[in-house]
Amino acid sequence: MLEKQNFIQAQYKREVLFETEAFEVVRCTWQKEALSKMHSHGTSQCSVLVENGVFENVTILGFNSEKTVHNAGQVFTTPLGAQHEIRCLSEIGTTLHVYSPKITKMDQALKFTTDKTALDNQLHIGQPIKWESVIQLLQQIENTSVSTHSPYFMNQLFSGVHAHTIAAESIVQRTRTTLATNEASPIFSKIEKILVSQLSEKLGWNPEVSDGICVAGGSAANMMALHCARFSKDPNTKKHGNQSRHYRIYVSDQAHYSFLKSANALGFGTDSIIEIQSDDEGRMCASELEKKISADLSSGFAPLFIAATAGTTVLGAFDPFESIGSLAKKYNLWFHIDAAWGAPAYFSKNVGLTLGSELADSLTFDAHKFFGSELTTTFFIVKNGSLLFQANDVKGGEYLFHESETLDRGRLSWQCGRGADFLSFWTLWKNLGDQGFQEAIDQKLELVKQTVELIKGNKRLKLMSQPSFLNVCVQVLPPEDIQADLKTWSLYVRKKMINDQFAMVNYSENQKDGYFLRLIIVHPQLKIQHVKDILDFAVHVR
Amino acid sequence: MLEKQNFIQAQYKREVLFETEAFEVVRCTWQKEALSKMHSHGTSQCSVLVENGVFENVTILGFNSEKTVHNAGQVFTTPLGAQHEIRCLSEIGTTLHVYSPKITKMDQALKFTTDKTALDNQLHIGQPIKWESVIQLLQQIENTSVSTHSPYFMNQLFSGVHAHTIAAESIVQRTRTTLATNEASPIFSKIEKILVSQLSEKLGWNPEVSDGICVAGGSAANMMALHCARFSKDPNTKKHGNQSRHYRIYVSDQAHYSFLKSANALGFGTDSIIEIQSDDEGRMCASELEKKISADLSSGFAPLFIAATAGTTVLGAFDPFESIGSLAKKYNLWFHIDAAWGAPAYFSKNVGLTLGSELADSLTFDAHKFFGSELTTTFFIVKNGSLLFQANDVKGGEYLFHESETLDRGRLSWQCGRGADFLSFWTLWKNLGDQGFQEAIDQKLELVKQTVELIKGNKRLKLMSQPSFLNVCVQVLPPEDIQADLKTWSLYVRKKMINDQFAMVNYSENQKDGYFLRLIIVHPQLKIQHVKDILDFAVHVR
Repeated sequence: MLEKQNFIQAQYKREVLFETEAFEVVRCTWQKEALSKMHSHGTSQCSVLVENGVFENVTILGFNSEKTVHNAGQVFTTPLGAQHEIRCLSEIGTTLHVYSPKITKMDQALKFTTDKTALDNQLHIGQPIKWESVIQLLQQIENTSVSTHSPYFMNQLFSGVHAHTIAAESIVQRTRTTLATNEASPIFSKIEKILVSQLSEKLGWNPEVSDGICVAGGSAANMMALHCARFSKDPNTKKHGNQSRHYRIYVSDQAHYSFLKSANALGFGTDSIIEIQSDDEGRMCASELEKKISADLSSGFAPLFIAATAGTTVLGAFDPFESIGSLAKKYNLWFHIDAAWGAPAYFSKNVGLTLGSELADSLTFDAHKFFGSELTTTFFIVKNGSLLFQANDVKGGEYLFHESETLDRGRLSWQCGRGADFLSFWTLWKNLGDQGFQEAIDQKLELVKQTVELIKGNKRLKLMSQPSFLNVCVQVLPPEDIQADLKTWSLYVRKKMINDQFAMVNYSENQKDGYFLRLIIVHPQLKIQHVKDILDFAVHVR
Repeated sequence: MLEKQNFIQAQYKREVLFETEAFEVVRCTWQKEALSKMHSHGTSQCSVLVENGVFENVTILGFNSEKTVHNAGQVFTTPLGAQHEIRCLSEIGTTLHVYSPKITKMDQALKFTTDKTALDNQLHIGQPIKWESVIQLLQQIENTSVSTHSPYFMNQLFSGVHAHTIAAESIVQRTRTTLATNEASPIFSKIEKILVSQLSEKLGWNPEVSDGICVAGGSAANMMALHCARFSKDPNTKKHGNQSRHYRIYVSDQAHYSFLKSANALGFGTDSIIEIQSDDEGRMCASELEKKISADLSSGFAPLFIAATAGTTVLGAFDPFESIGSLAKKYNLWFHIDAAWGAPAYFSKNVGLTLGSELADSLTFDAHKFFGSELTTTFFIVKNGSLLFQANDVKGGEYLFHESETLDRGRLSWQCGRGADFLSFWTLWKNLGDQGFQEAIDQKLELVKQTVELIKGNKRLKLMSQPSFLNVCVQVLPPEDIQADLKTWSLYVRKKMINDQFAMVNYSENQKDGYFLRLIIVHPQLKIQHVKDILDFAVHVR
């Protein structure tokens, strides 16, 4: 079993020059080929001054790594959230390190469950307390929190703490401004627009015509899609409201629950959502879709919108965009792709998954999932970009918006003040380029294949469906010598895994099979060994 | 004229031990009473080790300061975003300082306008670039951004970079999790609930009955209020939609434009918004409100919702909550208070402003404005808390929500994944307590009075209305010897102020008087001298 991700191995002499609560200055003495190996979890930044000798430094930034050679007098800094490895190339050498905060914080054990009463007496706000005590409390909060930085955290559709995000967020904090107006955030406004354009290109849309905006999460983007569809069908609804139209909204039975929330919020009512049956691999059945549309038309309803999904939450399925797109065209419906989770596929060599996306009218993309950007970094992109302004702009913002139309990006949005959360995604993309993104996603898709092999090779594990993306759903069968309910055994395994502070993996269920585990192959430093560890643990539970 | 906020004054001997791009270690030698005076703008953290001697350290955290005495061997750290001042109490002493990042970055000039083509060739994403180049670019972005950290930045309803927010955000980054479920964020979920309860108490509501949720900005909170009101009036709309009801929503003509956006999004249509005339000080006329409600009832409309404002965006006006509340009761309407900007008044000794708030059904509060929390930290609070769950929860989240009802806070929200932005507000409140909040707001209200005196004492300045909160609207009259349009002169002054990189103050207009400046008294370190500087500049423009 792999040792957990919190270790420091050093083959050099380490002398602490001074050490405080907040930082640590260390001198290291090296001999040729001596190696430091360090796994960070985002709490410590290390700056190194080469006093003498020659060193090779490999910084692992998440999806990529960079190797550099440094001579005496040179300095390098390992960013927060990154790992690094230093090797001495000369006969001897010395280096001076400043760790801030001090490095011992990196040795903490993983935590996947918390005492329910933890910190209970300290969270309530009462009499003023000193800054130092506040900082101590913040550190206790950190120590009590779930270890989402670990590759053994697979509970959500994100995992890991990313150097890019920490670096970008520190700039966002220091420049603290709002995206509502161009004059308060000239550079960030430009960057948002560039990201939207370049994502449009990836979808095969014309970036000159399309537009988009960052919104507060995938749910908000799906809501905005429905709103734009309504406006596009009947611009009068902006002034006069929904009136008595009986719109119909088609989603698969695997779609995200946010469509129900959106139909509720936008005044359509949840009854307007029609769930289309999916196949065994979780993909919407286009033939079923057409049947429902026809039936609704016959009954006098007004079909408005089809939401396909790129990467469903449980199975990671990609709906058949080509056939859905042609139905949308045939019946003149808005075609939205909820790619909150699956959008990285647009960077993959495996273009099969995304075929037909060029037919869509709008798309949701959460960069905080696969790409680990600031929560929340969600793009809502719309092919006919001018709709975004028309559907959203209202009067009354004259005290704020002083520029021509779309330059003040608040006019495209339901939000007024908002931060530049997307800077972290820009930072990562700028660093890696399309090529790096392609490698990042394709490496993970390869890891999924290896995971499937592991599962198929173990008779105690049952693969729930052939994965097409980064979700691997697997049922754990109880040991033969134990009388246990097959349908709930995976739930028991999961609980044990969490209570042992070993790993955190989510679950789901279907009527036929009962509960199963959902592995998410997303942590940037995830190796097949981590997956093996988790599966080993699972089959050894009694 | 005050020197701008970027200076370091030192009366001690300073010896740089080593210095890199990333950090700096400095030894200082002091004599009795020698003083260091430093103004930070959030880019540098300083850790100090007292080698020998006794020192007094004053850390200015924004709204408060803390004084401590340190002896040899002790360590103190000045947080990012804070200022500090050190004084030597012993005959001689030495201290060792680690600055990270190095301190020279603090000398940059203020920037309120940016070359429109700045960084244009570097923002597009192309070939991969090295991490070091990415970091350099991020620094260029920082240097090109508007100096919102300065007290001379008054363009928005926030100003300054806050140590509390930087400290809290670093924990949010390192613990990277989502508020959707309790199991992924047990402590943060608790903290959100505590903040909501304690804010409810401040409003005079029963915290056992009320509930609330953090949403993505004041606009989203106002939208949620309308949504809850609709559900409360007719729970069937959740399933069946708005149908053909003709709801009416009453706001003052000074209310935030987000109500129009909300009426559009929620399917009411912007026509459902009825603007009620305000008086000279920007307060909604309750008698006008009643007239409109009566007229609408006679015409067969369905009055639903009154939005009063605590702190309007331009004039900072507080609507008369008592009379509005009693009308809401009389006609059985939802009574919402948009206190996005004005909520700090609930902590003030001046209770006059907020009288009648106990009658409201819901309230919007942006902690990222006055209190400088992470953008966005918005609370939507609702008196009948169970409505929040009932109005928003839908099926389909079973793969995610494993706890009983409201423990998974995502079920109360339109968002699924979201970060713990509110931790910064908790950090500040925990540090200062109610008492500190009261002092913070009352000091600023006092500064407003002094500002009004300055304006009244200068015949070239015209006060647009008597301020009741932190907005001071002032028209600059052109010099007597210049032929200029009175109505546009303030606009010219503002442009000059920005182009000279002197200050950034926003403007508005009314039909009778034309354009005027809007000073916002909100920066935590704002002194009357800063205001004097700005007014001096204004009257000297030619």
